Amino acid sequence: MTDQSSPPLPLSGIRVVDLTRILSGPFCSMLLGDLGADVIKIESPGGDPVRQQGHKVNGLSWYFAVFNRNKKSVELNLRNPEGVAVLERLLADADILTENFRPGVLDKMGLTEARLREINPDLIVVSVNGYGSTGPYVDRPAFDFIAQAMSGFMATNGTPATGPLRTAPPITDLVAGLYAALGAVAALRGRDAGCGAQRVESSMMMSMLSMMAYLSSNALATRRDPVPTGNDHPIASPYGLFRAADGDIAVAPSTEIIVRRFLGELGLDHLLSDPRFETNEMRLRHREVLNHLINEALASDTQDNWIARLNQAGVPSGRVQSMTEALADPQVAAQQMVLQVPHEGRGTVAMTGFPIKLSETPLQVRHPTPELGADSKAVLRTAGLSEAEIDRLIETGVLGTGEDAPS
Amino acid sequence: MTDQSSPPLPLSGIRVVDLTRILSGPFCSMLLGDLGADVIKIESPGGDPVRQQGHKVNGLSWYFAVFNRNKKSVELNLRNPEGVAVLERLLADADILTENFRPGVLDKMGLTEARLREINPDLIVVSVNGYGSTGPYVDRPAFDFIAQAMSGFMATNGTPATGPLRTAPPITDLVAGLYAALGAVAALRGRDAGCGAQRVESSMMMSMLSMMAYLSSNALATRRDPVPTGNDHPIASPYGLFRAADGDIAVAPSTEIIVRRFLGELGLDHLLSDPRFETNEMRLRHREVLNHLINEALASDTQDNWIARLNQAGVPSGRVQSMTEALADPQVAAQQMVLQVPHEGRGTVAMTGFPIKLSETPLQVRHPTPELGADSKAVLRTAGLSEAEIDRLIETGVLGTGEDAPS
Repeated sequence: MTDQSSPPLPLSGIRVVDLTRILSGPFCSMLLGDLGADVIKIESPGGDPVRQQGHKVNGLSWYFAVFNRNKKSVELNLRNPEGVAVLERLLADADILTENFRPGVLDKMGLTEARLREINPDLIVVSVNGYGSTGPYVDRPAFDFIAQAMSGFMATNGTPATGPLRTAPPITDLVAGLYAALGAVAALRGRDAGCGAQRVESSMMMSMLSMMAYLSSNALATRRDPVPTGNDHPIASPYGLFRAADGDIAVAPSTEIIVRRFLGELGLDHLLSDPRFETNEMRLRHREVLNHLINEALASDTQDNWIARLNQAGVPSGRVQSMTEALADPQVAAQQMVLQVPHEGRGTVAMTGFPIKLSETPLQVRHPTPELGADSKAVLRTAGLSEAEIDRLIETGVLGTGEDAPS
Repeated sequence: MTDQSSPPLPLSGIRVVDLTRILSGPFCSMLLGDLGADVIKIESPGGDPVRQQGHKVNGLSWYFAVFNRNKKSVELNLRNPEGVAVLERLLADADILTENFRPGVLDKMGLTEARLREINPDLIVVSVNGYGSTGPYVDRPAFDFIAQAMSGFMATNGTPATGPLRTAPPITDLVAGLYAALGAVAALRGRDAGCGAQRVESSMMMSMLSMMAYLSSNALATRRDPVPTGNDHPIASPYGLFRAADGDIAVAPSTEIIVRRFLGELGLDHLLSDPRFETNEMRLRHREVLNHLINEALASDTQDNWIARLNQAGVPSGRVQSMTEALADPQVAAQQMVLQVPHEGRGTVAMTGFPIKLSETPLQVRHPTPELGADSKAVLRTAGLSEAEIDRLIETGVLGTGEDAPS
């Protein structure tokens, strides 16, 4: 679990000073840490608010634990100029600064672009925010629900009956964090290749807008809005949720050939010579009758058997799994997507694993999520501060070691 | 619009041979192209099926156009051994191979891991697939709808009334493509740093599972499933869609302080000393009454005015925008998130822009989406094939130049 015993990872040796909190930024810095960077999470006194969110086991939020693995924690008061001076010392040796303040907050802290260049001309500054750092909404506070609403996403999620529907996962935070991580690693590679250091930015609203795929390209081409269609595919039939003997299965035949295989597997080949179902267009018109006939045929066997048979025949099919079912899925186990991470004093924490698989340098949890301020002293020592300086910063409340933090 | 006149980008000089089609893989290779790589899209005779999907203008699918910008197109028959031989010549000079076949297809083509290492020991192979390349579902065909269902996402999307609901954007394709791009650039950087070349993989189901945030961490911690809550926040009130004089606004007060500011701005401060609304817990219990009182107060002014006032007061708020409204948003314009790209013979194509902002090497459309096979000859010439060899490959139908392709 230490850097010393681990093989080199793609970002080994890269130092990230991480001012982010809550979600979009911490996801970005988690990805950098997962890829091998040394991430120093700077937390305000009291710590990242997410330490207090989500379900806790032995006093530790498992929500916080997954997004802050592979990081160290320094508890530092940046409202105190001495705290900012410590931050500047850390930045002098860093490769990347990550932050997800509202645009302008870093400037107010004295860390203007010019000042940062002075401290470290090779520093890559990565910002994640709500709407971008220019434009009419630059000063607006950001929140996932609002970015879902403004990006056009919510209006396409749902059914005509529900109207615009928020999705449960904080998807705009996460997509923005993922884009920021990609931008950060690209900027690192660019710096190696002679592009110099640069500022990298992503925003929640624009990141989500970029994920609208054919919904946005069709809207641009036709100037018409898509209609929310729920589980029905707007232009394909059969498609959707169907009913096996013991529960629903999702089926998505993607081409005419696969539709034939699907109906063939069900013993319904004859339907394709029925004028009502001969073409996709006709099937869309008679979707209800067709779905009824399919459900009748599916009633003869179980979910698991149909799913096995259909996939065998090349027809994409699967269960609608609840969260706990998905986490217990044998494929999820085979892909090591639930990790058991021992945390000193907190027991073993279960968390989702690494969706990026690297053959030679597989990702791993090198550090479990740090206790607040656990690395304050060690990090400052490495930055060259003396024990006396460190003690004074602790006494004056600039540096915290988490010992009096709530848990 | 040419490589020569452009400033260097982070991935300038990186060559990607791209066997991907449809969406997850092409999104990955688009991101690499956007970041500066030279992407050679190898298309089967007839081309990527997405060329025929989505709304077309002047015969060009705008859906295809956005996901295939910054690429060149070579039309090559890989079912013919001579086609594979040409591919091998291209791979000898490449940095990255991207593919999103079902696991095992590359092997069947003769491009086993050993053979690829023989051709080019420095080649980074990037695979995007449905479920990963090991485990019980490895042979299943993949499709976004099924990955949404199996990852646990669908079960959390929707309301208790709708039940599990698919979301409209092909989110699992896109998230898997984004992770693959991050893995690819990290592997490049790792190769520069001495990790050697390696295989990079992401899958649609595991990528989506990793985006479930507190829904998965709470489920792991409690062994209980989340209940879909639609637009209501499971544990915060007030929160959601409210009604101004001329339409809905989304409001998401994230902390108790912001709740106070929200009610204050509405002239409803007094509610916070009403025992029904004093704490978040009490407000959750009396959510309906509270929402009614808020809607009454909001009826006095317009969406735009309330959104401006609330954001000014630090309360995250915005419109629920339709797709066309989002694309026409002034912030989207300020962030250059709708690009107008001239395509020879196809008019000007509008497409979403770059959510990754780089200060020194801003991303750009260096090549509009290629016509099928438009670069077949040029790419093979660069790879060292003679005119006679190229002509013979065209005559024997191994190489296409798109001239007889449907449009």
